Amino acid sequence: MGEEHDRRLAALARLVAGNGADALLVTRLVNVRYLTGLDSSNAAVLVRADGPAVLATDARYAGMAAEQCPGLDLVVERRAAAALLGIAADGGAGRVGFEPHALTVERHAELAALDGGVAFAPLGRLVEELRYVKDESEIALIAAACAITDRAFDAVLPALRPGTTEREIAVALERAMIDQGADEIAFPSIVASGPNGAVPHHHPGPRPIAAGDLVTMDFGARYKGYNADMTRTVAIGEPAAWQREIYDLVLRAQLAAVAAAVPGAQTQAVDAAAREVIAAAGHGDAFAHGVGHGIGLEVHEAPLMGYDGTGKLKDRVPVTAEPGVYLAGRGGVRIEDTLVVREDGPERLTRTTKELLVL
Amino acid sequence: MGEEHDRRLAALARLVAGNGADALLVTRLVNVRYLTGLDSSNAAVLVRADGPAVLATDARYAGMAAEQCPGLDLVVERRAAAALLGIAADGGAGRVGFEPHALTVERHAELAALDGGVAFAPLGRLVEELRYVKDESEIALIAAACAITDRAFDAVLPALRPGTTEREIAVALERAMIDQGADEIAFPSIVASGPNGAVPHHHPGPRPIAAGDLVTMDFGARYKGYNADMTRTVAIGEPAAWQREIYDLVLRAQLAAVAAAVPGAQTQAVDAAAREVIAAAGHGDAFAHGVGHGIGLEVHEAPLMGYDGTGKLKDRVPVTAEPGVYLAGRGGVRIEDTLVVREDGPERLTRTTKELLVL
Repeated sequence: MGEEHDRRLAALARLVAGNGADALLVTRLVNVRYLTGLDSSNAAVLVRADGPAVLATDARYAGMAAEQCPGLDLVVERRAAAALLGIAADGGAGRVGFEPHALTVERHAELAALDGGVAFAPLGRLVEELRYVKDESEIALIAAACAITDRAFDAVLPALRPGTTEREIAVALERAMIDQGADEIAFPSIVASGPNGAVPHHHPGPRPIAAGDLVTMDFGARYKGYNADMTRTVAIGEPAAWQREIYDLVLRAQLAAVAAAVPGAQTQAVDAAAREVIAAAGHGDAFAHGVGHGIGLEVHEAPLMGYDGTGKLKDRVPVTAEPGVYLAGRGGVRIEDTLVVREDGPERLTRTTKELLVL
Repeated sequence: MGEEHDRRLAALARLVAGNGADALLVTRLVNVRYLTGLDSSNAAVLVRADGPAVLATDARYAGMAAEQCPGLDLVVERRAAAALLGIAADGGAGRVGFEPHALTVERHAELAALDGGVAFAPLGRLVEELRYVKDESEIALIAAACAITDRAFDAVLPALRPGTTEREIAVALERAMIDQGADEIAFPSIVASGPNGAVPHHHPGPRPIAAGDLVTMDFGARYKGYNADMTRTVAIGEPAAWQREIYDLVLRAQLAAVAAAVPGAQTQAVDAAAREVIAAAGHGDAFAHGVGHGIGLEVHEAPLMGYDGTGKLKDRVPVTAEPGVYLAGRGGVRIEDTLVVREDGPERLTRTTKELLVL
């Protein structure tokens, strides 16, 4: 817990007050981590409009919480949320917000049934609102995760030769990320070769890569809680004309999306920038997902940038740009960077070359 | 999708009918996987009391679903649950259940607002009820995951020497599990050495293990969706008397828990069997968690076996038995097996020796 956590808690307290609530019961674990630094599988925070915040977690995490969050009131209790709701009630809170996107109907019913005279009301995504624009310490951690991801790609390049299976490549990428300093992988790696490249979320399998394949690798490291997300597609042996054609197309679309990712841009406009390039080449139907997403403590977080989304980019919002073209039965290409929107232009955090590598 | 999925869907349809509902909208992803075999991050199943089940998932998983679940009606739609609720309404369903432990308050409100003339009512944990007792094909997969876990432990033994860090051991365990055939790890491995052994959920860190340490390793493989969970504590160099004493104590407690895990036993009684051994030695306060948990498609699932739980063991219920003693500032011991409750006595699935290894 550092001064950034104090700042976040204070900012949230102001949002709580601005929403007419006496307190917010934060139960979404990634939000608890953002606010306090504590990485626990059972924790909650009570953030009061006017008063100190209280952290609750169970005995397994009590030592960690006491050490990492010395400035916070700490309650050690297995039923963390219920304990905090009781504290709010005892403190005379009239209206306590909860996170309707985090509480299940079942847990909500249990908490609402606690008779403390508190009005328990949905108060959506206030912490996510704070998390949207990152501070420089967060961007530095995302950049570190991206640098690890870049180095892992370099380390695995020699293994990208005919006969290596998709699964072996995925394992090699994941090991290389750990060797390069990742705390863990951000998500299960996708390695899709040859015709499998037409499946955007292909699970890496026993298929050995072969001369003439395009191989798409989508992977990322996690470092101190923050994520990287990168995709590169390489050619095994000299590519056919159609392969080079869709590669060049996707690269142009990707560069267009990156260029469109400026403060004030509608997320739809970023998606459209890539989509128009691909549609103009007659492959509009072959790009069946959004162009990217925000990234931070979660791999996928706001803003989700699709053709039908709403939302506006701002300075210091990290996002991915990842258009693709998928041709059923033949193969596909996806190229993805993690970047951060900046006043003076997008800053790429994944820096691996986007030239088509012919291996 | 095999005949076991047909059987599960049919059994669930009967439960739905028995609960007076026309259908159940299954949105919990692990339950969707159990019922259909499909491993998707966006899917739902509509199980009708009287009529065929319908699976919905988005375009990314459509090919996989068509291939793996040929016998099921398939709807390809990003808003999977909403699409299925519409189908239920169109089919004249009056009362459609939902899983209150899976739907968030927010998603529930979105679905409940769809005007289809359907009464949308909580219908809790029907699929979990089916999942409680495993069929032999599931037990075989858990046993395979446990065998991988055993082999990984053997493979890592040579690295357990002074100077190796906790983190290096955790990475070595995880790599060994993949090398031995795991699809992925079941959960982040715990490696806790010396005084860190007093923290049940210690994150493996930079501490090098040293002569005189006890080292606790809690880890497991995942194989075709099913999990293993095993803990062993070893001594680095000849253990001190207090170390051998708590090791022997925890082992006696663990054996008592295993022996108590018989069909018909209350889960509390299994916990008590271990707890009484530890309390009788004066260390009751040093065992601050439940004795074990069910295991299957989830690492932690019903029954949770603590001092205050309720529930009864049955034939073919896989559980863990994992008592521990944790002495703040000094260290700890935990010993854990995955086993399956059988009519003819508990069957251990993790088979690594429980003799104290002195390395």
